[in-house]
Amino acid sequence: MTIDEQLAYVKKGLAELIREDELRERLIQSEKTGRPLRVKAGFDPTAPDLHLGHTVLLRKMKHFQDLGHTVIFLIGDMTGIIGDPTGRNTARPPMTRDEINRNAETYKAQVFKILDPQKTEVRFNSEWLGPMRFEEVVRLCSKYTIARILERDEFSKRYKDGIPISVHELLYPLVQAYDSVALECDVEMGGTDQKFNLLVGREIQRDSSQPPQIVATVPLLEGTDGVEKMSKSKGNYIGITEPAKVMFRKVMRISDALMWRYWELLTDKSLPEIAAMRSEEPMQVKMRLAREIVTDFHSAEAAEQAQADFDSEVRGGQEPADIETANLPDAVGNNLPKILVSLDLTDSRTDAERKIKAGAVEINGEKYTKLTIALPKGLTVFRVGKKWKRVQV
Amino acid sequence: MTIDEQLAYVKKGLAELIREDELRERLIQSEKTGRPLRVKAGFDPTAPDLHLGHTVLLRKMKHFQDLGHTVIFLIGDMTGIIGDPTGRNTARPPMTRDEINRNAETYKAQVFKILDPQKTEVRFNSEWLGPMRFEEVVRLCSKYTIARILERDEFSKRYKDGIPISVHELLYPLVQAYDSVALECDVEMGGTDQKFNLLVGREIQRDSSQPPQIVATVPLLEGTDGVEKMSKSKGNYIGITEPAKVMFRKVMRISDALMWRYWELLTDKSLPEIAAMRSEEPMQVKMRLAREIVTDFHSAEAAEQAQADFDSEVRGGQEPADIETANLPDAVGNNLPKILVSLDLTDSRTDAERKIKAGAVEINGEKYTKLTIALPKGLTVFRVGKKWKRVQV
Repeated sequence: MTIDEQLAYVKKGLAELIREDELRERLIQSEKTGRPLRVKAGFDPTAPDLHLGHTVLLRKMKHFQDLGHTVIFLIGDMTGIIGDPTGRNTARPPMTRDEINRNAETYKAQVFKILDPQKTEVRFNSEWLGPMRFEEVVRLCSKYTIARILERDEFSKRYKDGIPISVHELLYPLVQAYDSVALECDVEMGGTDQKFNLLVGREIQRDSSQPPQIVATVPLLEGTDGVEKMSKSKGNYIGITEPAKVMFRKVMRISDALMWRYWELLTDKSLPEIAAMRSEEPMQVKMRLAREIVTDFHSAEAAEQAQADFDSEVRGGQEPADIETANLPDAVGNNLPKILVSLDLTDSRTDAERKIKAGAVEINGEKYTKLTIALPKGLTVFRVGKKWKRVQV
Repeated sequence: MTIDEQLAYVKKGLAELIREDELRERLIQSEKTGRPLRVKAGFDPTAPDLHLGHTVLLRKMKHFQDLGHTVIFLIGDMTGIIGDPTGRNTARPPMTRDEINRNAETYKAQVFKILDPQKTEVRFNSEWLGPMRFEEVVRLCSKYTIARILERDEFSKRYKDGIPISVHELLYPLVQAYDSVALECDVEMGGTDQKFNLLVGREIQRDSSQPPQIVATVPLLEGTDGVEKMSKSKGNYIGITEPAKVMFRKVMRISDALMWRYWELLTDKSLPEIAAMRSEEPMQVKMRLAREIVTDFHSAEAAEQAQADFDSEVRGGQEPADIETANLPDAVGNNLPKILVSLDLTDSRTDAERKIKAGAVEINGEKYTKLTIALPKGLTVFRVGKKWKRVQV
């Protein structure tokens, strides 16, 4: 790849790149000297249960690996060892070394589905923070001013609202920045919410006579509903350890618009390749996406099988390609007969009840015989006899 | 002494005591258990050259010793070792262990003129800060919020004015507080400008399950001019290593009003004893004060001699008790003939010059034969023949 192509490859899907000219310069230098760039991203030491939202970042890290660079998967275990010392955040009790190591293993099992272990350094920041002394902490803290840290949106809002900010919270951006010094990072990546911390890294590196790291942020991935950020608690997620069949089905249920976003953020396809697919039949393209994703986290065979299952169960039931998408009135609640009436799938609630009991109602390709239903977020496909309807929740 | 008398003794001259009821309780406990209270004050590791202003605090510490308690003379050497890491404050380069030890010895030579070495612990906070790790720093910092620290006048003003506050500066109040934990202090003393830091000590001790220290602040001592804070740069100071004769003379030159303040802050005399002296002849009382002070820093013999010198040189010259005090017009500058004319001590500048050259002019009891003079701050006594005038600069 030419430098321009390399740049285009790692830029795809980024929310922000600070600064492109510096990255170009470093890619050129790396090519000249044969020294791979060091690309870091930090992760919490808490138990990981990754979904596709997390893989956006991992995939961008992989793209640097694809170009021959080294990725540093940094586990911020020092924070874990300390926990939340104020005791206010009960979700963050101190962790033992054993727990942290176990979580690190779970992480590896998951992230090495995307990252190349040969080009990945897994590091723990307790390596350099553990032996760090008061004197060094003071020196580190002297590099940055309160005003700069309080500029950060999150802090500035809390300060104005009178929500307590403990002094130790100010240390964390500095520590994250110091991690970059300790690791001599060329690039640090993170979510858009990490931008401030990543920029502090540039200043602390400059202060330590290192060239400032390039900062690359990735956007937050929308969940299967296409609206909110993918999150376990919202129920709009696709977990990377979910069975192939479930994963495939969930991808098939996203909207066409969201599909293009997923192509961009969840695959290695270049923008021109993605653009070229826009002329194809969307259902076919979505099926390819589902296969790509299942292949990443399971295998090509599992993807084959998931597609076959999908064909026989969903398309075998003659699910038409042009199902109408409707909105549900709030009033229907969990009452399935009411839902079916409001969707014009049955004539009356009595009719609906009879059909449900007779096994003539399918939801997402499966028979449904109860009278109440908790609709998951995202798209749900209803079928009553030959009538089909899709609902966006 | 009864508890009430003890309380009155240590309260004399304090600017503030937080809180009196707690101190009473601790004095009672100490009497019961025989455990002396631990009374700390912190000092910079920079080269000390103490004047009477510094001794106000030392004397209050001594008063606790007089009651049998232990005084901790804490040298904040950790700050010295670090210096000002921003490099902005060139007055604070990092110091070597040797320099710090040398300064500590100079300190001891000076402060043991007031403190009883048997009841003094000289400590260095590098003892516990040196080995302190990142983890402990974070824990310490978690005990306190940004808002509380920015409440401090000095910080709040700087923050509002946009003058940079480095993060490490927030660590210092916490560290000073932690010193109290490490030393298990019952009382911490300092100048009124230290009040905030001393109060942080109470909170951090409480958090470490120690009873919160009592905070006692001493006022700033006015210099010999009776107006501004005593300070070397203002020239209104009495240094504790100055010769007995100079010290005596400087005390004799303060105003009567200031004399009462000095009795309160610079001697061990109780308030009733001081009140009793108000009916005596002020010049006699001032002479006694001068002798007390010279005795403290030199010896009773030196004080005797200083008084004899003063008598023969100043009073022997028939310095009247009722010399008029005048203000000098700015326009006279350093020109002694002009000064003498403006004070009505000579008829003309020519007359003045002639008298100066003839050795007929005395300033502060000594012949003065030059035509220019840099007047020191404070009171200066002029004599030309039988004419006397005092000038307040």
